[in-house]
Amino acid sequence: MSRMRILTEADLRRLVPLDMGVVACVEAAFAALATQAVAMPPILRLDIPEHRGEVDVKTAYVPGLDGFAVKISPGFFDNPQLGLPSLNGLMILFSARTGLIEALLLDNGHLTNMRTAAAGAAAARHLARPDARCAAIFGAGLQARLQLQALTLVRPIDGARIWARDADKARALARSLSDALGIPVTAIANPRAAVAGADIVVTTTPAEAPILMADWIEPGQHVTAMGSDAGHKNEIDPALVLRARDGYFADRLSQTRCLGELHHAIRAGLVAPDADFAELGAVIAGKAAGRCSADQITVADLTGTGVQDTAIAHFAAARARDAAVGRSMDSHSATADADAA
Amino acid sequence: MSRMRILTEADLRRLVPLDMGVVACVEAAFAALATQAVAMPPILRLDIPEHRGEVDVKTAYVPGLDGFAVKISPGFFDNPQLGLPSLNGLMILFSARTGLIEALLLDNGHLTNMRTAAAGAAAARHLARPDARCAAIFGAGLQARLQLQALTLVRPIDGARIWARDADKARALARSLSDALGIPVTAIANPRAAVAGADIVVTTTPAEAPILMADWIEPGQHVTAMGSDAGHKNEIDPALVLRARDGYFADRLSQTRCLGELHHAIRAGLVAPDADFAELGAVIAGKAAGRCSADQITVADLTGTGVQDTAIAHFAAARARDAAVGRSMDSHSATADADAA
Repeated sequence: MSRMRILTEADLRRLVPLDMGVVACVEAAFAALATQAVAMPPILRLDIPEHRGEVDVKTAYVPGLDGFAVKISPGFFDNPQLGLPSLNGLMILFSARTGLIEALLLDNGHLTNMRTAAAGAAAARHLARPDARCAAIFGAGLQARLQLQALTLVRPIDGARIWARDADKARALARSLSDALGIPVTAIANPRAAVAGADIVVTTTPAEAPILMADWIEPGQHVTAMGSDAGHKNEIDPALVLRARDGYFADRLSQTRCLGELHHAIRAGLVAPDADFAELGAVIAGKAAGRCSADQITVADLTGTGVQDTAIAHFAAARARDAAVGRSMDSHSATADADAA
Repeated sequence: MSRMRILTEADLRRLVPLDMGVVACVEAAFAALATQAVAMPPILRLDIPEHRGEVDVKTAYVPGLDGFAVKISPGFFDNPQLGLPSLNGLMILFSARTGLIEALLLDNGHLTNMRTAAAGAAAARHLARPDARCAAIFGAGLQARLQLQALTLVRPIDGARIWARDADKARALARSLSDALGIPVTAIANPRAAVAGADIVVTTTPAEAPILMADWIEPGQHVTAMGSDAGHKNEIDPALVLRARDGYFADRLSQTRCLGELHHAIRAGLVAPDADFAELGAVIAGKAAGRCSADQITVADLTGTGVQDTAIAHFAAARARDAAVGRSMDSHSATADADAA
């Protein structure tokens, strides 16, 4: 009656690697967001400044999915000094019919990493030229790695450049990705040179001032900006939104207007606050045109949405059920074994 | 490093019955709310009208407590037709220093029931006359039962009356409480008669129009209104707030102004929107006067606060640790046993 499945980070890493299944799951979530009456309340945010901590809670209900997730994402930025990761947290999957817990996904952020990378793949699959071969990645963190991996799933990528403020990190990541993907990946110290001749540019940084200039972008390039998820963050030159015009796509327009790159184009007076743009989900659902020509510049502005969380939690729980992975538990019974932690 | 404790509803019912420990825990939470820089963000709310479902997420950080809770409370009102309880949910206790999960409290609402009842005890302990012996309870649900039980912990209650719209339910509850508490508890069909001569009146209903009139209240009576937690709910005649004047106390003034009984007194034009009233926590902390005379009418307006959730989650986890109850789990390791649900 109230049995739930408990899955750990190790379980979830095994069950949900970055693959086309995850990309398809996130694409379906974006399509639902653009075509259905998805309920996605504003993010709940708790700050704990004493410990440089912040907690975000996101949720969304997608009609037709029999479950919805609540995601709790704590970020505590002094953790590395304690030998702990900054980002942790979990997702809880509830039945959309009864509100009972279906699964506890103790993922420590893994599912967020996967759904964020998959959104980059979805953007490239629907907006980049089909023959895109060369990628430029800005940043040298985990998403820099995952975004390049994600691109290789959807486009015939045969080479990549990495630019990051910290040249050592860029070099280390380039070496590691060359080995992992079996393609030449090079660290490039000049960001403009990194972009020149690339087919796809992905920015994955927490920058608070543009690191990618509008006049660096060449006809036919696709840009995915996925670093900004807060009003003060800004990776791309606001003029690029204007330059892309109909080639600009939001993951969620109501969010990119206040948290994304569009926010800064509006603040700079380049775009009207109520200017309408298509959402990526509408392109995926076939309700809006994506790339119209090989010369068009396209921009995907990704801020992260609760609907991606609900979709990947649902997906992970289904894979766990099929593979019979996880611990099954009844919330009403006493815990079987009493062991001191 | 990242071990957490998992506690089920059965564990938590055993560890956290309604006792003076819980009352002290909730009193400390109210005192903290009134005296410290508690961070308590607005409630996140998701509605799923197709299944008459609603989900509330609450949280609060209390400086000095080493953990904070996030509570997820789904209410699905078609569940009784499926043989399931309407209210379910869980609390997650996180370290306030690292954001790591300390405990998963799969309580299906038990801890909320306890902290809500304990708030009623705290209100009576600080606002009712010390010699209060007779209680009148409005409503016949679980909180009607728990509120009377809670009063017996803090005042020498030797008799009680129950009034509810459904007279059969009132009779059944009165019988059951007589047996459980060993005092005469009588169902009374006329609400005014139920109030006459009582020392404490507690309203525990989801009423949307007043069920307790101002002119029924006698000098020296204490009223706790704990049913309203939404703008459209209203249990007491707005004139009673005016009649109580300095005897009115909010659990959280910013909440009772929009969710509590005060809200309706403001809407009726009886109280200015910015009129200041003391909070119950200030009385508990000795920063504000409570009851000033045996004749004074006092009113406690309780809407429920995230700080109560953080306090009781912390308290439950500490009791579990002391009693070595629960299952210990590492979110990084694979689940030991793979068993299909």
